[in-house]
Amino acid sequence: MKILVDELKDYVGKEITFSGFVDAIRDKKWVMFVILRDNTGKLQMTIEKSEEKNQELLEIMANTTVESTVKVTGLLQENEAVKLGGMELIPSKIEITSKAEPLPFDFNNLDGVNIDTRMDFRWLDLRNEKNMLVRQIESCFIEAMRDFLYKNRFTEIHTPKLIGAASESGSSVFKVKYFDRDAFLAQSPQFYKQMAMAAGMNRIFEVAPCFRAENSNTNRHATEFTSFDLEFSYIDSYEDVMSLEEDLLIAGLTKVKEEYGERIKEVFGNEVIVPKKPFPRMRLQDLYQELHDRYGFDIPKEDIGDMNAEAEKLTFKLAQEKFDSEFMFVVDYAATKRPFYHMRDENGKLQGYDLIWRGTEITSGAQREHRYDELVKNAKEKGLGKDVEFYLQFFKYGCPPHGGFAIGVDRLTMLLTGLTIKETQFLFRGPNRLEP
Amino acid sequence: MKILVDELKDYVGKEITFSGFVDAIRDKKWVMFVILRDNTGKLQMTIEKSEEKNQELLEIMANTTVESTVKVTGLLQENEAVKLGGMELIPSKIEITSKAEPLPFDFNNLDGVNIDTRMDFRWLDLRNEKNMLVRQIESCFIEAMRDFLYKNRFTEIHTPKLIGAASESGSSVFKVKYFDRDAFLAQSPQFYKQMAMAAGMNRIFEVAPCFRAENSNTNRHATEFTSFDLEFSYIDSYEDVMSLEEDLLIAGLTKVKEEYGERIKEVFGNEVIVPKKPFPRMRLQDLYQELHDRYGFDIPKEDIGDMNAEAEKLTFKLAQEKFDSEFMFVVDYAATKRPFYHMRDENGKLQGYDLIWRGTEITSGAQREHRYDELVKNAKEKGLGKDVEFYLQFFKYGCPPHGGFAIGVDRLTMLLTGLTIKETQFLFRGPNRLEP
Repeated sequence: MKILVDELKDYVGKEITFSGFVDAIRDKKWVMFVILRDNTGKLQMTIEKSEEKNQELLEIMANTTVESTVKVTGLLQENEAVKLGGMELIPSKIEITSKAEPLPFDFNNLDGVNIDTRMDFRWLDLRNEKNMLVRQIESCFIEAMRDFLYKNRFTEIHTPKLIGAASESGSSVFKVKYFDRDAFLAQSPQFYKQMAMAAGMNRIFEVAPCFRAENSNTNRHATEFTSFDLEFSYIDSYEDVMSLEEDLLIAGLTKVKEEYGERIKEVFGNEVIVPKKPFPRMRLQDLYQELHDRYGFDIPKEDIGDMNAEAEKLTFKLAQEKFDSEFMFVVDYAATKRPFYHMRDENGKLQGYDLIWRGTEITSGAQREHRYDELVKNAKEKGLGKDVEFYLQFFKYGCPPHGGFAIGVDRLTMLLTGLTIKETQFLFRGPNRLEP
Repeated sequence: MKILVDELKDYVGKEITFSGFVDAIRDKKWVMFVILRDNTGKLQMTIEKSEEKNQELLEIMANTTVESTVKVTGLLQENEAVKLGGMELIPSKIEITSKAEPLPFDFNNLDGVNIDTRMDFRWLDLRNEKNMLVRQIESCFIEAMRDFLYKNRFTEIHTPKLIGAASESGSSVFKVKYFDRDAFLAQSPQFYKQMAMAAGMNRIFEVAPCFRAENSNTNRHATEFTSFDLEFSYIDSYEDVMSLEEDLLIAGLTKVKEEYGERIKEVFGNEVIVPKKPFPRMRLQDLYQELHDRYGFDIPKEDIGDMNAEAEKLTFKLAQEKFDSEFMFVVDYAATKRPFYHMRDENGKLQGYDLIWRGTEITSGAQREHRYDELVKNAKEKGLGKDVEFYLQFFKYGCPPHGGFAIGVDRLTMLLTGLTIKETQFLFRGPNRLEP
């Protein structure tokens, strides 16, 4: 495979072939500088105009536009005067592999470019250094978290996204024409993660798309998003789930900091902070009290027993001020505000939590109700009938106590970089956005 | 997290807590043997009836059914007479964590159990040792292939499954009600993989669901399946793509053989064979000739320029006999039989291939057409208009030469184990199957 810019140092003094985009052409009186680019950096190509043998190369480049792609053979030589890595490529052969039309906007300077234009031409928008970095960070984060789970003997599964019944959560579901009947798109793999527990799979995870037919246009919602989901068996309480999530996020952030910490600071101005275990945790009632005492914030009546966006933001402030932490677990939500499959103890206390990071809920976790009778009772209480019947069957033939959580991958990346959801997803999907 | 059966050897002689399913209860005159099970194996629990302190434990177990789950504290002691690992658990405390109703069938003996019944109760079907192993093999295979790609600096992406236009391939597409318009489910991430190339992402992969609205009931088709997709830039020809696929499959099969080779042989009677590079390859015309000469097989008129199921089966036979290989690349398909985005050379020769493994096509790969004008021409030739217009835009502003392929994960696992697609997918989806 092609040599990457960040691998070039191993080739100094050698004849190489280098391929990339034409990032810029600086046509000076005596020399032409061509900046070449790939997803790992930039390289200067230098063509002396005085040399006879360069005339053909100069002509080729004169007929080339920026953002075209080229394949260059030449000598990679050391040159301390060159800012880009102290080296330059002296070409002996240049081949234009694709020619670019003039771009609709300058992706190096996106200030003032309409976000919809950027989305329309997302493949050009992604050429921006920041946006390219986002993709690498996200990939690295997921890799590290998966790696942690493999080491802990988790099995990856692939649950169906086409489902026969619309159920589970209040948010709306997309309907699919499925031959002579209707199917629905899974809002989460929750039921199937639990099916895997009933099957005795013990520890499983999945990284896959989820679909929510919510007609809302915010900075953090999308109709399709990537969810990092896991579930594991034989837990004693939701404390085990929180503990695993701490370890998982520490593993992910440690690797991101190692690989991209400096660049994230440089490009986004954000410090990657690896949290310490245990993350601070607060009961919802205590949190309300503290938000009131410190910031004069009172949760609106309709949200009592739950959080809202404002409370999440202040919780971040509190976590930083009181615990010197970016993370905060919040526990003791009202059972009425949570799904029926979250376990409650004998006093009705919910065995679940939310995790707030940098002012946004990134995860919901819980010990799940694995006892058939309790689950049937909880489902009835929520008015769920026929649609969950298939799910209830999972718990009839033995099912270990278990718990799990889901992390919104896009949110995680969003918070790491400080961008909006539209800038964070590879291709954003919202009520008004299905293209490209 | 709980101690797994295959980790128990580190705990011999110690007091432990072990959780698992009750696999079997053997109530003898003087002793009760309880076999406990998790996803890694089985453990014998021994309760002597004569001991006073065991009476309570015996009563608990007498009220317990097989396939219930338990949490046991006790001494793990060595006992060479015990077949299961030469150890046994002497309990001091037993807690029943879930109680199983009688099962609708014996998952240890699936002969004669209707496949639909098995699918209806898939979580019980998965408790079968074979089926549990399938899940672990698939996870391991994907892990190894991903790992290979990370090492080769590939970036993982997550492309949208909700798309605005139905296009690309002849197979039918699912329609989704998307607010006040229609959306469609992606049949493959092909267009978006290529968008990533136009964005300059250089090397990308994705493991994600694909959807095909094909109303066919065969042993190897599903309406939803997991695809392992990759695409990379700056290739010289489709030979580079084939070469990468060889390396990728070697990496995957090497790890599967290491981790599960013995168990696969034991449970499925199959040898895992790690192929050698390069895999044999044949031109389609030469292959037709050889299949005719050796086996008297002639490709039906309507399939000329392409393969069919019978040809794939015989190609496997040929690969084994002629090349001592389970794999065979087939090249020089007719351009009329292939998608418009596969590159053709100046003579119209297709720059793509199929890979046949064990008698089934597991992959299609190609150098893609990255030249805007050629692509427009090819699309027109196939009668594709408005639906691919958004895609054609990707190639206007510079796009490196690139290629890639897709591997059907379920097919791969199916061929490794010799099972049907229904037994291979975590949850099969077909025209008549959306549940559970």
